Amino acid sequence: MSWFRPWQPLEEREGETMGISGEQVQQWDREHVFHSWSAQDQISPLAVAQADGAIFSDYQGKEYIDFSSQLVYTNLGHQHPRLVAAVQQQAEKLATIAPAFANDARSELAYLLSEIAPDGLDYVFFTNGGADANEYAIRMAREYTGRTKVLSMYRSYHGATGSMIHITGDPRRWDNEKSTGDSFHGHHFFGPYLYRSAFWATTPEEEAERALAHVERQIQLEGPDTIAAIIVESVVGTNGILVPPPGYLAGLRKLCDRYGICYIADEVMAGFGRTGQWFGFQHFDVEPDLITFAKGVNSGYVPLGGVIMRREIRDTFAHRPFPGGLTYSGHPLACAVGVESIKVFRDEDILGRVQDLGDRIVRPALEEMMNRHSIIGDVRGLGMFWAVELVWDKETKEPLVPFIPQPEQLQPMKDLMAACVERGVWPLMVSNRFHLTPPLTIQEDELRTGLERFDAALSTFNSAAYRRA
Amino acid sequence: MSWFRPWQPLEEREGETMGISGEQVQQWDREHVFHSWSAQDQISPLAVAQADGAIFSDYQGKEYIDFSSQLVYTNLGHQHPRLVAAVQQQAEKLATIAPAFANDARSELAYLLSEIAPDGLDYVFFTNGGADANEYAIRMAREYTGRTKVLSMYRSYHGATGSMIHITGDPRRWDNEKSTGDSFHGHHFFGPYLYRSAFWATTPEEEAERALAHVERQIQLEGPDTIAAIIVESVVGTNGILVPPPGYLAGLRKLCDRYGICYIADEVMAGFGRTGQWFGFQHFDVEPDLITFAKGVNSGYVPLGGVIMRREIRDTFAHRPFPGGLTYSGHPLACAVGVESIKVFRDEDILGRVQDLGDRIVRPALEEMMNRHSIIGDVRGLGMFWAVELVWDKETKEPLVPFIPQPEQLQPMKDLMAACVERGVWPLMVSNRFHLTPPLTIQEDELRTGLERFDAALSTFNSAAYRRA
Ligand SMILES: Cc1ncc(COP(=O)(O)O)c(C=O)c1O
Ligand SMILES: Cc1ncc(COP(=O)(O)O)c(C=O)c1O
Repeated sequence: MSWFRPWQPLEEREGETMGISGEQVQQWDREHVFHSWSAQDQISPLAVAQADGAIFSDYQGKEYIDFSSQLVYTNLGHQHPRLVAAVQQQAEKLATIAPAFANDARSELAYLLSEIAPDGLDYVFFTNGGADANEYAIRMAREYTGRTKVLSMYRSYHGATGSMIHITGDPRRWDNEKSTGDSFHGHHFFGPYLYRSAFWATTPEEEAERALAHVERQIQLEGPDTIAAIIVESVVGTNGILVPPPGYLAGLRKLCDRYGICYIADEVMAGFGRTGQWFGFQHFDVEPDLITFAKGVNSGYVPLGGVIMRREIRDTFAHRPFPGGLTYSGHPLACAVGVESIKVFRDEDILGRVQDLGDRIVRPALEEMMNRHSIIGDVRGLGMFWAVELVWDKETKEPLVPFIPQPEQLQPMKDLMAACVERGVWPLMVSNRFHLTPPLTIQEDELRTGLERFDAALSTFNSAAYRRA
Repeated sequence: MSWFRPWQPLEEREGETMGISGEQVQQWDREHVFHSWSAQDQISPLAVAQADGAIFSDYQGKEYIDFSSQLVYTNLGHQHPRLVAAVQQQAEKLATIAPAFANDARSELAYLLSEIAPDGLDYVFFTNGGADANEYAIRMAREYTGRTKVLSMYRSYHGATGSMIHITGDPRRWDNEKSTGDSFHGHHFFGPYLYRSAFWATTPEEEAERALAHVERQIQLEGPDTIAAIIVESVVGTNGILVPPPGYLAGLRKLCDRYGICYIADEVMAGFGRTGQWFGFQHFDVEPDLITFAKGVNSGYVPLGGVIMRREIRDTFAHRPFPGGLTYSGHPLACAVGVESIKVFRDEDILGRVQDLGDRIVRPALEEMMNRHSIIGDVRGLGMFWAVELVWDKETKEPLVPFIPQPEQLQPMKDLMAACVERGVWPLMVSNRFHLTPPLTIQEDELRTGLERFDAALSTFNSAAYRRA
């Protein structure tokens, strides 16, 4: 429409309960919103009307237990009263200020992050999300080492900006490689994944040892002096919730030391209590050189990400400018929620709670389900970070949908997802897996109910309904 | 410090007026915050305690008239009561939801944006800021055209992610090119800049005509079939507030049509009333294929950016997935402020006000100053978007600091900036220019006072104080 034509007054709708009707939300969504990662005509997004804690509901009032924490980021749940208050109070005080000034919320969050990070990781650069956190961490590593290459894992996700999609090791990289032709000095190696070992290993110890031998060989053949950084998710998230076997991350740390490579821990999904520690790497007694974060740092109430870096890396830019920046670096509103979130973690002992619920409820429930359901090939995870991997056959481990599926091959997973949704539980569906990643604040009865509903949904599976290729 | 050690309780400070003292803010900033684009030991960021409208103040209570709108983004000023209320109400209602759902604030903002955009630009993809808006617009253009190259201007800024810094045409690109070695299919051409014409032109008409001949020649030699997009700031911002001469953008549009190239208008800085129109290109009677925005869309109260696209481009992804996305795409809190901001623009007739203040007050004041001050070589701009270019000599146009300065050569500008700050006006200092970009809501007396202070600061200039190379 012409920009000179005044649009329809919207006030008329303001008297209504939810402001705008559910139909209007859906209509405008269909007619004007372009959605991430989607074939736009093949989706019909559920309109969410409200949310509270671990529950969200649609405009018909139907409630869902949020086993996804949205995209694994509402770690303290929906509408946590203290986080809502933090947004409101900071908005009242000072919503925004440019990165070149000093600001109390930003200063305090940087201080708190340096406190929860290992000794020596004292400085924080703030970004808007996870992809740009990784962008800047890699830039720092390159400037610090004077080298260009970056090694990352197959089966990893590090974001979707033009550069980060290159180091991402999942199939979403391929379409971008086809259409851009840009080149990024990135190289992929295989990480540990015992259930489908790339190293013909049969025990966690063997998997760790062989995975390390593999990556060291790759470092040597790429040329150690050419490698600026190795970036790894401390627990691989979207690509399968792959908990590294004991010794693996420590071994990587040693290789980085040996070859002068920066170790970047991508904690965007694993961080802030998801695994029961502040950071995933803390389960494995290692300390990275750079930590990237987003999501759980403030439960995504306001977009925020960032990099925590070693002092030596910061000092590289003591007397020459760091060649990077962004308008909303250290946004006060986002930082204020981060500050309050860290206080809530402490006051509600979130880390202890996650360890307890993970060990006492989720792990036993999923292991018990695995015994009963022929399609569960593997369950793995820790804390509130779990994957259930589905297969046609426990022996052959043939995945319920192939790694590179034809659209119709997705049907078994889609049907299972629909069975979950129908029963009021909302897990994340990824390839042949369901990821169960509830808010860390979920009530015990909600957690149990959600698991029961998930269990019931799996029970609807009828292998005979699918004609297989 | 060890992550096992509980940190100091912070509650003790909560009784204080500002929460944390100004000294504490500055100390934590120095010890823990890493700043954009800076040599970390050579800055001492001013701690801002509060802000209101066009004024911000430090912890000593000293007030500054904000002639920068921070980084040219607080278009509706600091702490606009309606925007603050929008943040607070949306926080109360639903702070966040994942991009895969439909949401009222997101739907409504997408609808409103499609209303203010030209006919046919009906769909909106939301990002967190300006750099990622450009990332995704370029990806769409590449997928849509099946081509890879992107043409952009020398003297442009499009963001600092690994890919966007490549298409940026200012010196901040260079350090990144040195350290990464990544390659991006980007190529730069010269845009119009009559004051320092790259085309030996002497009139706006000549500049437009020759700049178009130049870019067409470049298109032909790069190979029209290899070029996915041309991206231009409708009014070049950071690199000099370069208002294109009449006919230039319309000519670019024609070239894009002739060669099947997508025209991307980067409206991140020029958009949302900065020039007195919704979008800068609306002064020039052209319609792009993709519009990127951020900053003024919601005055940066919550990080937000995005892409408005033609329906045909959206339809490219009707039945195959768009290969990109981000966790906070269409963030409800950010979108709610965008919705309210557009309503404020309408209710307060912001566009009319900007045109009026620009023509009636700023332009005459700056032209009059140019007559009096020997160092003002050029003033240019429109609406609330102005540059004052400083030179040693009006005849030779030798810039007050060279394009590639030694650190000590920055001194004249630094001294002038200090004179501004001392007098309580805060412009943006860029190279040999001051950019005057106040909030669009600035009161008339504040605007006049700010201009007087700026004038007085320029009067302190003493050419003899500098030993020149
Ligand atoms: C491990 C990891 N890194 C980076 C990202 C990218 O974060 P964002 O979507 O905020 O860009 C994600 C997002 O899921 C992630 O899981
Ligand atoms: C024209 C233009 N494009 C893009 C950007 C990048 O925006 P951001 O800093 O939000 O990434 C800017 C920032 O100043 C800009 O002025």
